[in-house]
Amino acid sequence: MLKVGLLGAGRIAGVHAIAISSNTGSTLAAVSDYFPENAEKLAAQYGSAARSTEDIIADDSIDAVLIATSTDTHSDLIEAATQAGKAVLCEKPVDLSLDRARACQKVADKTGKPVMIGFNRRFDPNFGALKVALKAGEIGKPELLAITSFDPAPPPVEYIKVSGGLFRDMMIHDFDMSSFIMGEAPVSVMAAGSSIVDPEIGAAGDVDTAVVTMTYADGRIAVIKNSRRAVYGYDQRVELLGSEGLLQAQNMLENTVVKSTADGVTGAKPTYFFLERYMPAYSAEWNAFVEAVNSGAPMPVTLADGITALAMAEAATRSAQTGSPVRLEDV
Amino acid sequence: MLKVGLLGAGRIAGVHAIAISSNTGSTLAAVSDYFPENAEKLAAQYGSAARSTEDIIADDSIDAVLIATSTDTHSDLIEAATQAGKAVLCEKPVDLSLDRARACQKVADKTGKPVMIGFNRRFDPNFGALKVALKAGEIGKPELLAITSFDPAPPPVEYIKVSGGLFRDMMIHDFDMSSFIMGEAPVSVMAAGSSIVDPEIGAAGDVDTAVVTMTYADGRIAVIKNSRRAVYGYDQRVELLGSEGLLQAQNMLENTVVKSTADGVTGAKPTYFFLERYMPAYSAEWNAFVEAVNSGAPMPVTLADGITALAMAEAATRSAQTGSPVRLEDV
Amino acid sequence: MLKVGLLGAGRIAGVHAIAISSNTGSTLAAVSDYFPENAEKLAAQYGSAARSTEDIIADDSIDAVLIATSTDTHSDLIEAATQAGKAVLCEKPVDLSLDRARACQKVADKTGKPVMIGFNRRFDPNFGALKVALKAGEIGKPELLAITSFDPAPPPVEYIKVSGGLFRDMMIHDFDMSSFIMGEAPVSVMAAGSSIVDPEIGAAGDVDTAVVTMTYADGRIAVIKNSRRAVYGYDQRVELLGSEGLLQAQNMLENTVVKSTADGVTGAKPTYFFLERYMPAYSAEWNAFVEAVNSGAPMPVTLADGITALAMAEAATRSAQTGSPVRLEDV
Amino acid sequence: MLKVGLLGAGRIAGVHAIAISSNTGSTLAAVSDYFPENAEKLAAQYGSAARSTEDIIADDSIDAVLIATSTDTHSDLIEAATQAGKAVLCEKPVDLSLDRARACQKVADKTGKPVMIGFNRRFDPNFGALKVALKAGEIGKPELLAITSFDPAPPPVEYIKVSGGLFRDMMIHDFDMSSFIMGEAPVSVMAAGSSIVDPEIGAAGDVDTAVVTMTYADGRIAVIKNSRRAVYGYDQRVELLGSEGLLQAQNMLENTVVKSTADGVTGAKPTYFFLERYMPAYSAEWNAFVEAVNSGAPMPVTLADGITALAMAEAATRSAQTGSPVRLEDV
Repeated sequence: MLKVGLLGAGRIAGVHAIAISSNTGSTLAAVSDYFPENAEKLAAQYGSAARSTEDIIADDSIDAVLIATSTDTHSDLIEAATQAGKAVLCEKPVDLSLDRARACQKVADKTGKPVMIGFNRRFDPNFGALKVALKAGEIGKPELLAITSFDPAPPPVEYIKVSGGLFRDMMIHDFDMSSFIMGEAPVSVMAAGSSIVDPEIGAAGDVDTAVVTMTYADGRIAVIKNSRRAVYGYDQRVELLGSEGLLQAQNMLENTVVKSTADGVTGAKPTYFFLERYMPAYSAEWNAFVEAVNSGAPMPVTLADGITALAMAEAATRSAQTGSPVRLEDV
Repeated sequence: MLKVGLLGAGRIAGVHAIAISSNTGSTLAAVSDYFPENAEKLAAQYGSAARSTEDIIADDSIDAVLIATSTDTHSDLIEAATQAGKAVLCEKPVDLSLDRARACQKVADKTGKPVMIGFNRRFDPNFGALKVALKAGEIGKPELLAITSFDPAPPPVEYIKVSGGLFRDMMIHDFDMSSFIMGEAPVSVMAAGSSIVDPEIGAAGDVDTAVVTMTYADGRIAVIKNSRRAVYGYDQRVELLGSEGLLQAQNMLENTVVKSTADGVTGAKPTYFFLERYMPAYSAEWNAFVEAVNSGAPMPVTLADGITALAMAEAATRSAQTGSPVRLEDV
Repeated sequence: MLKVGLLGAGRIAGVHAIAISSNTGSTLAAVSDYFPENAEKLAAQYGSAARSTEDIIADDSIDAVLIATSTDTHSDLIEAATQAGKAVLCEKPVDLSLDRARACQKVADKTGKPVMIGFNRRFDPNFGALKVALKAGEIGKPELLAITSFDPAPPPVEYIKVSGGLFRDMMIHDFDMSSFIMGEAPVSVMAAGSSIVDPEIGAAGDVDTAVVTMTYADGRIAVIKNSRRAVYGYDQRVELLGSEGLLQAQNMLENTVVKSTADGVTGAKPTYFFLERYMPAYSAEWNAFVEAVNSGAPMPVTLADGITALAMAEAATRSAQTGSPVRLEDV
Repeated sequence: MLKVGLLGAGRIAGVHAIAISSNTGSTLAAVSDYFPENAEKLAAQYGSAARSTEDIIADDSIDAVLIATSTDTHSDLIEAATQAGKAVLCEKPVDLSLDRARACQKVADKTGKPVMIGFNRRFDPNFGALKVALKAGEIGKPELLAITSFDPAPPPVEYIKVSGGLFRDMMIHDFDMSSFIMGEAPVSVMAAGSSIVDPEIGAAGDVDTAVVTMTYADGRIAVIKNSRRAVYGYDQRVELLGSEGLLQAQNMLENTVVKSTADGVTGAKPTYFFLERYMPAYSAEWNAFVEAVNSGAPMPVTLADGITALAMAEAATRSAQTGSPVRLEDV
């Protein structure tokens, strides 16, 4: 039974708490948060204990920590937890600074402790089924990947200002998805972005609509479309053209009811946002972590994967600013 | 906090145990089973106690029981539990004998204790959304209802022999669904059935493929199609034509991946069987029961509803045997 | 080059004129109509000649006639045309009177001339593809057929009064479709009908909403749903469950555009009515007729097929009136 | 009645001949071809006359010519036909040389004769319905356009060598579609291309897989994906995200039959290639040309539109070669 400390007690931590409790091989031993009352509330709900982060990391009876705190604390906590001998599952992104993330990786690597980065979408049953079909050779050799990823509504501009920008904050999930599907990182990244959803986002130095094209060493191409606003819900689709066919992972819908009237044929919208869409993915992610910790197998998503996604975000940010392609090896 | 005794520890009881535990207003206080070791196993998993059925019913600290035992025990247990002052959620069908079920209702009614029958499909998010749209007037006045309900594979003939037959065992869900959608019971029931899936089912006196047409007092019509075998999965669809449109609740699929190759465009199959398809419905059903018990509101599915469905099954059974329509008031 | 006389110059005759002209093996030699000016107008459009029906039938240079006149003239014209040595394609139904149709068949059979009945839906590319898949064994042995056939709006009550009733006028297409798919006629027909769309239809002695269940000698079952009103368009679907799968021929849509907004995901409606939906079928029907005439092969839809459909309509009419099943051999 | 000369008698000319004949306001007066026997064959089929191109252009009784000859003759024939006083519908592209096309436009403009370029996809009922919904404000302000356009199989390398390359030969349709939807040309074009479908295409100096991102003056973005090979058929989709929703024009399918078996749920493939998919578009294109000629209204697709698409292709070609964005004003 894996004894788990949950660092952070915000909304996403609540989702993780369900997954930790539901897995018959893990138990929620302790919860911490910057605001102790949040930790207490979550701990009470799951019969766990609210403690300080330092306490949890220092407690040798805790086997693993799940880091769900704010991004600026991730690197420090990964270092501290691995040095304290714990397995770590850390929410994405590793860090907003590529240099800091790389330094963190060196520290963690020295400890030999397993670190997994929480790119939950790899565990979505739809994207997972697409990957399985690809690996089974069902569409031959992959050639052209297209990822569509639209949020239902932009976050507050205050959040945007500290987010690291659309490429590091939002598209980073899609960068990781592209690596997951294509099996490697691209050679070159070319970005176009603009702030047409909300000019205040532009005034804050960020974009809200972006297209990134990436080319791979063997000539394959991937393109990612992002928008901060799709009023119909959370639009999360992946489409891969191969030498022998096309695979498409489409949206999950709120329900399957279709209404036909004189006005047309209307079905339900996509599930609204990431909690609804990726709830099964968060569970599967945690289960995969527990299984890897127990078996000693490599983590299904490594710290290196997190750093690769961050480097792609960095390259895209530069490309959008300069208007020229950026080689991944140059960031 | 509702203290719940779970009578029965089989497969469907396991599903109910999850729902009872997940609801913040109920707790799994005790489990019983004909085979005590089954009860012990399930109790251990949820930190509950394995006890005898008699014990549970006699325990005044238990507020409610969920009856998930074999059908032939339902009436007795409903009577015993309500007489012991407990709220009851009982799996369908109430009984295979319409007379016995009616007698049971009299006993239960005298106690004044709430009894809910587990027609879980009323709580399926898709059928629920259809009902909401209907009540909102989105397709005007309902006129013609069609229910398609196919199992993936027939049960063993040994089960069929004690099942009460397709109309009482399988189509009873669809009878209840028709009442749920149409808002009342039909006047007349006309059935056609045959055993073309498996002649052994016919030899056992049952049918495996059936179509039942029902007419309502105001001229509305409903038709139900049942088959014991749809090799592609659990096919569960409802379609309602109204004066201003059509509503269709379609199947839920295993995933959203679509593959296009030289052989065609292929998507995932429907979820395989009732546990996969109706897992969210079982949770919603339990939540509705707890809410009604706590608020004192009428049960969302009553014992009378269970008896109506049973009467429809009885009428369909006779109609299939005689080849003539049977009026519901005659059974 | 088949020289064709078109008897009737109404709306459906216009559709046939296109098909006759487009086929490189047939030419529109003459047109007649009860109102000569209609014939003249249609003839002018296609560089043909307006003549009297008698004239056309008497003209030995005319190889074939297409009968698109009112139903009450069909039997007489089939007899006259075959006796004059012509091949005949006659619009459905053969006749409203089963006796008259049977007498007509005897006359036509004596001439040895080929007669085809215009059940155009057999030539719809979607239903055709379903039949091809069935014959290829793609779903094993057929077991349960369901046909949904809704008109967008009821015809005027004046039309209904002379139509022969829903079963002979509207469902007759679906009866023929069932024979086309199942490969034989049913043993027994059981109908439920009511007039809930428009009480005036009921006052005229007809129904506007009906469900017919048919059973076959080997236990297979078919069910047909009809409504005179589906406000969203012409709803024409066929669904066949077999031992190894399900085949569904779905509606054709006006276009493929899908709109996702805060209100839901909306697509186009089905094509509005039979001219839009079955335009390709009318062409394919004519082409099949020409090919059969030229090759001497049996007609793809025979006069006997037309009489079988009529007998099924007769049986359904009686069943709806008496509330009891009617055996086809009894009509 | 518009008297039309058809220049060219190849496969696409055959499609145009049907459209010219079907329109009640135009007649196919003459046909020419580089190989006179081709012209004779097509003329015979439609009761027309085979003549030389020079003859047709010199014939004052011919009102309009449809140019369906090889691309290298387009500019010369547009000039000659307009100078001879004829209205012109010319297949795309205007020319492979942007300079030559611009010179041609000057000559044609001086004659004042109407010239329409055959971007048939603007007349596809699906893309047309998308445009109508956009103009009606159904998704608010357009922000992000994505066009997917895959051919079923690459043409012979010999064709590729004289085609002008993927951007001028294939993507030019998509460039025009983007202008049709967005209502203006982009400011900047950024292309990535590679030859992963067939290395021989790369050896011939062309790409077979490409992604082009375009940015507009107001910040809007469009992205086009092209592949020379989609083994499942002709993949032609347009998707537009706006401030209030998403519009998607999806593929047309060969039929509507869906098969569900133990292997999954399989539907028909997209229509195979442009003749099947765009047959209705070719008719609608011709009808729009005739209507504009008769009414004196501006051509629905102008020579300037053709030159804009060519300039976008030129910019994309340069961008793919240099790896940098190219401003449209620089080509």
